[in-house]
Amino acid sequence: MGMKAVVKTAPGPGAELRELDVPRPGPGEILVKVRVASICGTDYHIYRWDPWSAGRVRPPLVLGHEFCGEVAELGPGVGTLSVGDYVSAESHVVCGTCLQCLTGQAHVCRNTRILGVDRDGCFAEYVVIPAANAWRNPPGLPADVASMQEPLGNAVHTALHFPLVARTVAVVGCGPIGLAAVGIARAAGAARVLAAEVNPYRQALAARMGAHRVIDPSREDLAEALLAETGGLGVDVLLEMSGHPDAIRAGLRGTRSGGEVALLGLPSAPLELDLGGEVVMRGLTLQGITGRRLWQTWYQMRSLLDSGVLDVTPVITHRLPLEEFRLGMELMARGECGKVVLYPGGVPS
Amino acid sequence: MGMKAVVKTAPGPGAELRELDVPRPGPGEILVKVRVASICGTDYHIYRWDPWSAGRVRPPLVLGHEFCGEVAELGPGVGTLSVGDYVSAESHVVCGTCLQCLTGQAHVCRNTRILGVDRDGCFAEYVVIPAANAWRNPPGLPADVASMQEPLGNAVHTALHFPLVARTVAVVGCGPIGLAAVGIARAAGAARVLAAEVNPYRQALAARMGAHRVIDPSREDLAEALLAETGGLGVDVLLEMSGHPDAIRAGLRGTRSGGEVALLGLPSAPLELDLGGEVVMRGLTLQGITGRRLWQTWYQMRSLLDSGVLDVTPVITHRLPLEEFRLGMELMARGECGKVVLYPGGVPS
Amino acid sequence: MGMKAVVKTAPGPGAELRELDVPRPGPGEILVKVRVASICGTDYHIYRWDPWSAGRVRPPLVLGHEFCGEVAELGPGVGTLSVGDYVSAESHVVCGTCLQCLTGQAHVCRNTRILGVDRDGCFAEYVVIPAANAWRNPPGLPADVASMQEPLGNAVHTALHFPLVARTVAVVGCGPIGLAAVGIARAAGAARVLAAEVNPYRQALAARMGAHRVIDPSREDLAEALLAETGGLGVDVLLEMSGHPDAIRAGLRGTRSGGEVALLGLPSAPLELDLGGEVVMRGLTLQGITGRRLWQTWYQMRSLLDSGVLDVTPVITHRLPLEEFRLGMELMARGECGKVVLYPGGVPS
Amino acid sequence: MGMKAVVKTAPGPGAELRELDVPRPGPGEILVKVRVASICGTDYHIYRWDPWSAGRVRPPLVLGHEFCGEVAELGPGVGTLSVGDYVSAESHVVCGTCLQCLTGQAHVCRNTRILGVDRDGCFAEYVVIPAANAWRNPPGLPADVASMQEPLGNAVHTALHFPLVARTVAVVGCGPIGLAAVGIARAAGAARVLAAEVNPYRQALAARMGAHRVIDPSREDLAEALLAETGGLGVDVLLEMSGHPDAIRAGLRGTRSGGEVALLGLPSAPLELDLGGEVVMRGLTLQGITGRRLWQTWYQMRSLLDSGVLDVTPVITHRLPLEEFRLGMELMARGECGKVVLYPGGVPS
Repeated sequence: MGMKAVVKTAPGPGAELRELDVPRPGPGEILVKVRVASICGTDYHIYRWDPWSAGRVRPPLVLGHEFCGEVAELGPGVGTLSVGDYVSAESHVVCGTCLQCLTGQAHVCRNTRILGVDRDGCFAEYVVIPAANAWRNPPGLPADVASMQEPLGNAVHTALHFPLVARTVAVVGCGPIGLAAVGIARAAGAARVLAAEVNPYRQALAARMGAHRVIDPSREDLAEALLAETGGLGVDVLLEMSGHPDAIRAGLRGTRSGGEVALLGLPSAPLELDLGGEVVMRGLTLQGITGRRLWQTWYQMRSLLDSGVLDVTPVITHRLPLEEFRLGMELMARGECGKVVLYPGGVPS
Repeated sequence: MGMKAVVKTAPGPGAELRELDVPRPGPGEILVKVRVASICGTDYHIYRWDPWSAGRVRPPLVLGHEFCGEVAELGPGVGTLSVGDYVSAESHVVCGTCLQCLTGQAHVCRNTRILGVDRDGCFAEYVVIPAANAWRNPPGLPADVASMQEPLGNAVHTALHFPLVARTVAVVGCGPIGLAAVGIARAAGAARVLAAEVNPYRQALAARMGAHRVIDPSREDLAEALLAETGGLGVDVLLEMSGHPDAIRAGLRGTRSGGEVALLGLPSAPLELDLGGEVVMRGLTLQGITGRRLWQTWYQMRSLLDSGVLDVTPVITHRLPLEEFRLGMELMARGECGKVVLYPGGVPS
Repeated sequence: MGMKAVVKTAPGPGAELRELDVPRPGPGEILVKVRVASICGTDYHIYRWDPWSAGRVRPPLVLGHEFCGEVAELGPGVGTLSVGDYVSAESHVVCGTCLQCLTGQAHVCRNTRILGVDRDGCFAEYVVIPAANAWRNPPGLPADVASMQEPLGNAVHTALHFPLVARTVAVVGCGPIGLAAVGIARAAGAARVLAAEVNPYRQALAARMGAHRVIDPSREDLAEALLAETGGLGVDVLLEMSGHPDAIRAGLRGTRSGGEVALLGLPSAPLELDLGGEVVMRGLTLQGITGRRLWQTWYQMRSLLDSGVLDVTPVITHRLPLEEFRLGMELMARGECGKVVLYPGGVPS
Repeated sequence: MGMKAVVKTAPGPGAELRELDVPRPGPGEILVKVRVASICGTDYHIYRWDPWSAGRVRPPLVLGHEFCGEVAELGPGVGTLSVGDYVSAESHVVCGTCLQCLTGQAHVCRNTRILGVDRDGCFAEYVVIPAANAWRNPPGLPADVASMQEPLGNAVHTALHFPLVARTVAVVGCGPIGLAAVGIARAAGAARVLAAEVNPYRQALAARMGAHRVIDPSREDLAEALLAETGGLGVDVLLEMSGHPDAIRAGLRGTRSGGEVALLGLPSAPLELDLGGEVVMRGLTLQGITGRRLWQTWYQMRSLLDSGVLDVTPVITHRLPLEEFRLGMELMARGECGKVVLYPGGVPS
């Protein structure tokens, strides 16, 4: 049996739509028929073949790590799932045996392998994953939302690391994860949510997700704007989702003494920081965030979505058939999108 | 100069409206002209002269500890306030020198004295308080809400002790503080808020404050209802605001293993608990709550009210001139009220 | 192949030394040749056939859940261990699929089954356990200490739940777990450790483990003694390991306002508590403790033992051949022992 | 009445011993007769007149902020102290009215003024301080230890921010504060304490304070050494007390994924950090530390010293009469000292 798949066939930019054999699940694995997959910035980096990708990815590789679908086949020894189950997937395949895995920090497992990066991913009609990585969705969860739970989980992990209720929160960088974080901060009772984003398309989405004010760091000084919005005090909590050196520095300056900073955005290179003046002397707390807490983040996400406390549908802006993945990559390149979702079986009307 | 005041003139039930001299602020104190005062359950206990009151209160005493008003006079050495400032008050006068006061736990100061309990209170045209107990209100805060910040602070302290976002929360006991807690839980992003209350008047208010379901423990088993609403698991967080022994026991049974319990309600006597089976074996966390964190709770409360994240106006159900305090006490006795507020200068039209 | 085992053959008091077939490990299980096993209070309860045992245990059953030994055989699919590995065991067999298991609270798994209680235990020459329950020991760890890591883990879990460094700590109840807790509190930098115990044999051991003062609640009022030792303030942290109603009440009274209480001792029945006066009004934090954090507690324990920061050898007071288990049970009955360890292969000289 | 004092008389390097009038305490202030004062790196920076000093200090100024002595006179309105009280001082004069001061974060008060930096200090026979900054010492506390409580408090604040018991801890930078931190880490039950220091004099002191291993970053790669000592894992907790850019970078690399970092050392300038690779991707927690928690740190310090859990006397290496302050500054310049203490009344024999 064959299937369509988006494949990085060789080192270098680009990817190809190929016909591959449907993979078979090994012991402890399952085969999932992909209903929706969605594009992450990481997919775009691999597509473009940036230095990080060139150093880590070993083609040929099926791309993609965000998706949902139905269980199509169980590998040997899988007892916790059934064919037909509607699942999404945790994209980090962790070892389960290191200190971090055994002490509640599996999100920083020392041996993490990632779908679509270190093993074949989900931009295909079928994908094989470890059964332990499957997350059963409620039947009523829309498939596009179900697909984007992996990045939404990043936003939940970041936004809920520090308490937000009754506090002033800055969300710096409003790609899909930042946009979700704006919504989560509102849902969590933040008194005031200040979003920072340079792209006008995403500025509009930030406002739609509930930001009380959207700051454009290309037009005004971000640190000054954060201070001005807080009577000179600075924000209580900074959610850093841009990875941009200037934004990181400005965000720290705009955070109040004794404030808290969750860092998710990945700078592309080392950056210069006034660690003494901004972090030490002012008693800031910085928390590096990666992945999702296993499985607290997934439970929190389910509760937020199920209860209607959080609505992330405005974040999903483009729906394309899998074959048009190149258009999706172009949208990502221009930033004129929220989340772009792909349908291996065609976009439903 | 004279003033009206509600005075417990002697041990025993009741209180009198009397004409007293306006008190003068001593060093570090201020005189406040009371705009609104509000009735707490504790006031009613003292009015009725229950055993606790008989053991603690030393008449004559002006009752009342919830209020707002304008600063009318500064005592010697007060430099942080001005005549005319619009203030509410922290009712707990703490010593500032004990270990608890000096290490961030002034809410459990070992030498706490309470307005209207241990020194003259605010059911009067004027009240003297330490300047350190005054909290400046934003000018736009409605006076009835400003008055009830003291009990609202109890609700904020209790509700925000444990994270509520994305969690299932039970609020047991829906007097004014419980009603406020329902609203705070919704504002803080609780996925589901289950309220328990026997009084139909307050059941309706709980629904109005946003409870997803209101349970009547006089008609159904509270523990069973909490389990049924959570698929047999139990709630993540219990906010105990009834002080009723049966409700406390049922609430614990209805909390999930590993769950968290904030206890504000005061049982009138020791009670029997299955500490081993419910708390130890199931790994519950119990937190006794009293007063307000100084001054974190007040900052949180200001943010919740200022931002519009929380609206407590439905909790305020009755407005009376100070002279009709007896009617207020009767409403409290019947539980057919939310918060009852008193106006020394007459109810505004 | 046959083996000796201590078997509860039928409901009722007592147990028999029997010859049984050596069990075979199923999928995911291992067979361990027991080097040392140790007696827990729970074993003694089952031996005596107290009401709890009568309601839960289904004979025939091999008793015992504390042990160490060598892996003798691997069941199908076990890839993380080798024959010959020197292991101890987590006695709680958890489901791995409930909310608690999936969110870092497996110690309160809703489907826990316990070795020697719900499935055959370790008072035998061989025992079968899930591979996931095995904990590899450092080669140099003495076998008697390795065996008692299960209860030592209770002590570590309880003692390290709240910070102890620079604080005054009361350990109430000095059975083997309480004795270990005294040592852990000293190791963790407690400024002062007050132990409470009625049994003179164990009082002496508490002093040997480092208690600064040993209080005998049968001779002096425990609450008064704790207050007297702290200038009237009360202890910062209470480690409740007695389960005795009077001791629990006295311990709470002797804890300072705003203090912290870790509850491990299991009262045999519901008890009367002044929840309002002691817990609510004084802002105490109570934490129910059961089992061991998986696997944080085990890592902490390994570090404490490996580094020499903690020496628990004084807690081990009696060494018996397995055949003399009845003598061990008698020592437990009289409380004239610390930890009693059993050797299926005979006591080493 | 006149007194000797070490005075920065004008901008530029150096300081003079001058005869000044004994200052008089204003309202809320006290006059303290200095028994011992001690030299901080900050004093040396001001003495040398480094760029930071030049930007902040306004001569003439009496230097020094670490000391102990007896209360000699009470200013108007001081009711909490008596003449003759044996006190040390918190050197940070905080405003008491900002958000940070009112919510338990006075150590990052936005309006902090520092003794010997922003107002006259303690390198003199007498010093005036706010009564609120005085800390009463136990009578038996040696005066040299009492004097160094201010920097010891930095060490306590840093070392006890994260739990250390049963963990591997690196202390990077072993000036007097780092040396004290080594001792605190041992007292707090750290399983292993790795100290890093380039100065041989201080390396020897680190070993004497209990470091299990002392790493010399001028001779071996610090990150590699930390990894090698932990089987490639990295340390659980990093206490950064050097402020040196290379050491900070190496310390982060040598901290395990999911580990915790307390930052006290002040880099003299912004530095380049691999924030993405070291902090974000590896989920580190960074906490900036400044000053002492008011007054938790002081209570902790008193407990550690009183109980004998901590002995910091090896840190005190040089005792000089006040007049020989220049020799003290030279010792600081060469790093051939631990804490240097000065005696205005002459060194006791």
